[in-house]
Parts: sequence; C-alpha cells; structure tokens
Amino acid sequence: MKVAIMGYGVVGSGVAEVIGKNAGVIARKSGVSLELSHILDIREFPGDPFAAYLTKNVDDILNDDETGVVVETMGGLEPAFRFVSACLEKGKHVVTSNKELVAKKGDVLLALAEQHNVNFLFEASVGGGIPIIRPLFRCLAANRIFEIAGILNGTTNFILTKMIMEDMDFADALKLAQQKGYAEKDPTADVEGIDACRKICILASLAFGSHVYPDGVPTKGISEITLDDVKAAALAGFVIKLIARAKQLENGKLALCVSPTLVKKDSMLAGVSGVFNACLVRGDAVGDVLLYGQGAGKLATASAVVGDVIDCAVHDRERIRLGWEKAADGVLEDADKVPTALFARIKNADEAALAAALPGATLLSGENGETLVLTGEAPAGELNAALAAFDPVTVLPVVDY
Amino acid sequence: MKVAIMGYGVVGSGVAEVIGKNAGVIARKSGVSLELSHILDIREFPGDPFAAYLTKNVDDILNDDETGVVVETMGGLEPAFRFVSACLEKGKHVVTSNKELVAKKGDVLLALAEQHNVNFLFEASVGGGIPIIRPLFRCLAANRIFEIAGILNGTTNFILTKMIMEDMDFADALKLAQQKGYAEKDPTADVEGIDACRKICILASLAFGSHVYPDGVPTKGISEITLDDVKAAALAGFVIKLIARAKQLENGKLALCVSPTLVKKDSMLAGVSGVFNACLVRGDAVGDVLLYGQGAGKLATASAVVGDVIDCAVHDRERIRLGWEKAADGVLEDADKVPTALFARIKNADEAALAAALPGATLLSGENGETLVLTGEAPAGELNAALAAFDPVTVLPVVDY
Repeated sequence: MKVAIMGYGVVGSGVAEVIGKNAGVIARKSGVSLELSHILDIREFPGDPFAAYLTKNVDDILNDDETGVVVETMGGLEPAFRFVSACLEKGKHVVTSNKELVAKKGDVLLALAEQHNVNFLFEASVGGGIPIIRPLFRCLAANRIFEIAGILNGTTNFILTKMIMEDMDFADALKLAQQKGYAEKDPTADVEGIDACRKICILASLAFGSHVYPDGVPTKGISEITLDDVKAAALAGFVIKLIARAKQLENGKLALCVSPTLVKKDSMLAGVSGVFNACLVRGDAVGDVLLYGQGAGKLATASAVVGDVIDCAVHDRERIRLGWEKAADGVLEDADKVPTALFARIKNADEAALAAALPGATLLSGENGETLVLTGEAPAGELNAALAAFDPVTVLPVVDY
Repeated sequence: MKVAIMGYGVVGSGVAEVIGKNAGVIARKSGVSLELSHILDIREFPGDPFAAYLTKNVDDILNDDETGVVVETMGGLEPAFRFVSACLEKGKHVVTSNKELVAKKGDVLLALAEQHNVNFLFEASVGGGIPIIRPLFRCLAANRIFEIAGILNGTTNFILTKMIMEDMDFADALKLAQQKGYAEKDPTADVEGIDACRKICILASLAFGSHVYPDGVPTKGISEITLDDVKAAALAGFVIKLIARAKQLENGKLALCVSPTLVKKDSMLAGVSGVFNACLVRGDAVGDVLLYGQGAGKLATASAVVGDVIDCAVHDRERIRLGWEKAADGVLEDADKVPTALFARIKNADEAALAAALPGATLLSGENGETLVLTGEAPAGELNAALAAFDPVTVLPVVDY
C-alpha cells in the first residue's frame, strides 16, 4: 500500500521515520507492506533522507492512482480541509492528526468519506500516541457512555505540575515550558484551553453520535490560576488540573466544558503529571477506564497516525464504521443548568450566611483567614449566583474522580 | 447477527444482559443488530429472564446455521477447548473470556480459525473490561514493543492494597477478599500468580508473535509477602505490587516473569489500587502507555466480550488479523541470565562486605537494624548468588516504572 504525507513538519517527518524504521514489524503483525509515495510541503529540505519523495504540488498525490492512503499532518483549517476533501473525493483513505480540522469539519469529512466508500481516521488528533479513539469506539462499543473526562493538553499539564510540585508561579512555568519546546511562542491555544476544547469535542461527537462544535463549549484556560489557588486546593485534598469534560445528562442533552478543575488527590487523574495526557471514560458496563500516556511528541503522535494507516491498508475494501451525524439543534444543555459541584475561596466570609446560602456545602479554613467552600451538586447557575454574593476570589468546578 | 453463549455463569449472564440492554446503542454505533439464539449450560435456571434460550446440548448451537458468533464463558480447559474447536470448524466466529484456554491453546485455536476463515477474539481474557488486546495489537501496530508490565490480577492487588494502606496482614486481607467475593474459596490461582501468568503469556504472544506457554514462566505469588516487606519497601520509596512482565531482550529472546515487585511510589502503577488492573506498554514510537480500569466484574468483562462480538458481526466476511505463531524453541531466555535489579532485606549485614559483593548497590537502614539493598541491573543469577551469601530475609525484583 502506497502512502503519501501532506505536511512535512514534526509529525509528518515522524510518520516517514516510523514507516521507514518499523516496516518489518508492521508487515509481520498486520500483513501489510507500507511504502511512501510522495511528501507534500512548500518548504525545501535539502539533504533530508526522504528528499526524493518531496513535492510542492498536491496534484502529484491526487493523480497518483497507486497512493491509497494520504496522511494529513499540515495542521490548521486551510488548505488542509480543501486537500483532504480532494483526497477523499479521489477515493483515497485519509488519516489525520489535525484536531482543528476534525473538531470543526469532522461531520463534513466523515460524510464525504462515506459517500466515496473510504475511511477518514484521526486517532492521533486526541491524546497523541495514546490509544483513545479506537478503544472508545470499538472496545467500548457495547457500553452506553456516561461521561468522558480528560487531561488532553500536555503544555498546560506541565505548567500545572510545576505549580503543584515546585511552587513555581504560572509565568515562570510557562517560560520553562517554552524553553523546553512544550509551549509555542504564542501559547494561547494551549493555555486558554482551545486545544483541549477541540479534543473533547471530537471525543463527545464520537461517544454521543452528533457533532459538537468547539464554539458552543464553555472554555476556560489556566492563565488566571495562581499559586494561592493551588495551595487552597491542596488544603482541601485536591489538585488543580485542566479537565475537559463531556457528559450526557438525564434529559439526553450534552454538557461539555473545559476548565481548571479540582480533582481528588488520590485519584488516577491526579497522578498524571508533566506533559502526559490521560482520558477517563465512564461506561455503564465497563465502569471507569483510564487511558494514559505521552500525549504528544513526534514519534508518539506518528505512532497513532501509522496505526490508522495500517487499519486503512488492512481494511482497504471496507469502510471502518466510525463517525457521527451532523450537529443536532439544542444538543448542548444550557451551561447554567448543568449539575456541578464548585470550590470557592472567599475572604472575610460570613460563614453563617454562607452555610445558609449553600445548604450542604462544606466549609474549611484556608490560609490568611480565607474560607474554602466545597458545594454539593446543583445547577451551576444557582451555585454561581449564591457564591457571587460573597465576592469569591476564585470559583472552580470539582469532580468526583 | 445471532449470538450463542456457552456457559451461563457470571460473565455469560452479563453478556446476555449487555446485549439485551444496549442493543439500541450498539446498533447506532456499529450498525449491527445482535440477537441471542441459544445459551448452553448444564444447570437449571428456573425463572431466569433468558430461560427460553437455555439448552444443555451443544449441538443446538453447532447445527444452527443462523448463529454466526459463539461466546465461550465456561472457563477451564475442557470441555471449552472441544466446544470452541467445533464451533470454529463449523465456520462460526468465537469470542472468549477464558484466559486458561487462550494461554494454553491459543496457537491451536488461532490456526483453526484461520483455516476456517473466521475470527477467534479474546479481549476479555486479559484485564476484563479494560481495552488492552485491541490497543496493543491495533493502535500500537506501528510500534516495536519493548516491554509489557501489568497488574493483571484484581484479587492480589486488593490484598496488597490492604497491606499497604491499612497495615492488614496477608491472612486477614485474604479473608476479607473472600468475604467480598473478590477471592475464591481456593485462592491458589490468584494468590500464587497463576492467573496473572496466563494473562502475561497472552499479551507476550500477541506482542512478540510466538506462543509463550505459562509453564515456562517463573511465577511467584504474594502468599509469602509480609507486612515487614511492605514497610521496608516503603522506607526505600517503593510499593509492592504483583507485576507480570514480558520483555524482549537485546538478543531477541523473551524474558517473562510474575513476581511481587517493587514499584516506585510516585509511578502510575503504584496508584493502581484495590481490585483495579492496569497494563503498561512500552513501545519504541509511543513511549509508555498505561491502560487502566476495573479488571473484572460481571458487566465489565461482559462489555469486552460484547465489543468483540460486535467486531465479528461488523467484519463478518473478513478475518481480523490478530494472532501469533506456534511456540518457537528457545524463545524464552534462561531466567538466571535476565538483567534485573533486586531489592533485599538483610539482618545483621556486614555492610562493607555487601558493598564489595554488589558494587553499585545502594544500602539503606531498615527497621530493627536491617540493611535494605537496592542493586543495580545485572543478570539475575549473579545477583541472587551474591545476595545468598548474606542470607537475605526477602529478595524481590525492582522496576523503574
């Protein structure tokens, strides 16, 4: 099976390397022999070991009947969307690591793939090399999925880990992440939760069957988290993680959110540190399952891409049924109505008034005379309104896993 | 697609329940509609909701041309092996949760399935509901696997967790596990590591491509682990877990072992507590991946079985390429030659002599004047010989994850 790569950056070059290096193992395990045909990139790579495959013209791929699978590792929406659409229309399977593309155009591309009887696979778009999409869709196919919660962004998890373990403040931890190459020069997409939001949209679409667009999801990043928040959470027995969540409510609607969130200190999610990612899936039959590993990195992500390429090659004549429908109207529950538990730091609190306003809440003594509040579960709008009267320093959601 | 179940015990009845309850979700996600045809069991189940499907005659299944998938949840080697063979020979896909059957007869049954162009799947035989087999074989197909290490037995993990967290001794923890239904009346298979051994053999066969039989694998259970061992490990910064490991050595041979093992306190494996299971996979491209969840239980295991049934139904006309070859001679490395790091408790040690006998070892002060030794990595036989001269109370392997 001949494979073309569009976008010869970090992941694309990793894909070429893995195919080159592990062709023997792949053939033994899967019975398919993978061979590169073209690599598309507008840049020059003089002296590169795969230089002979480079082209600047996408038509070289589109018009090559021998190329059966195309890997898209360009990133961004355009021209990736245009190129991927063209490949599917030409009857070529497409494998992508591009979460923006899948989160924003997944429904369109899945329908196009179905129409042309080819596969559109994207295991690498969530959790890098960690197997998440296939286990969620295939291994847990017998389950009704209740909830998915993930630490889906390595950059923010690295920063929070430094804040939690080494008392480093946000700005210093971000600078260190940039020095180590874990954060971009413009870290907005990571730090403000945009990347995690795209990923949870992909998982929710898959688990619940209709497309969820990122722009409908309440998304809060970690840039306002302070060391005082981290310490207050620790006092109450929690750590702060950037958690992306999706849940089907009893009325059938979906609740998605991305937010710094309090996670119990002894939970498996709390143990996910540094640039590692993890995804917890709660199903009716299987209970809680956690999939954990390095969320990014050249070879880890390439490993997931090549896994999908192998699947396309093995099932060349057959569509892998994996996908979802167009977005349904009103599929997302109003954020204020979603049942939530909250944590708040309050200065100079009238604790009697607090206890009266939030029946069932636990009050703890924080540092510097602060009161730490852990509410029970209630609609988020009600809890926020009740807390607002006490002018909280910080309010964050709390989860029970 | 019509599905028969052989063995209506805990898992088998869970399979009937999941198929009954989640037929709608399954149809939406996978496009297949599953329907029960027969349930084979020699026992009577008066008043059971699935009583109408019960039969005591395996021929009712073998001779029913409409039954395309047979689930084997009888356990044990016979008559399961005979019945499964007959189903495969009749051109029916077989899905099993029976680790003894897969570990001892996997190569034979896989060959039979290939010969008759049907699938023999066994996701539920390792880790219950946790997706392990499919991620290992499919998602990580692009990787050269270096090592697999798992907490693969919930009973022993429950017992060790009680010893670690609550200072309960082995006998009391075992009794509690039996009261809670986590351990059998005769707990030998769990406690002595036999169950974990079967599971690591299945994973090693899959990852490295040739059948590894359980009886060639050095297997040590937890019945001799004392609270003093647990405390000494804690002093050195470790917890004791029953770890089943498989590794490909540089000479290409395999090293498998099941043993109570020291795991670093802050590692993800150390956080796996109670009846939960986890499996760590180390691949050349993906790095470390951990798959974690409830290892057993009626519905968790049934969830994995039904996931496989769905795969058979979706790929009815096509073989899922998953398997391994017959055992190769000399595939297992001599246990004495396997590079290992060891931990030992030694009473009244001559520390100067110890340091001389084990260059590079770290010596720590334990309780009651004991010396705790952490050796570097060297062939297990050499280390054991050097330690034997000091009459150690306990010697256990140490891992770096």
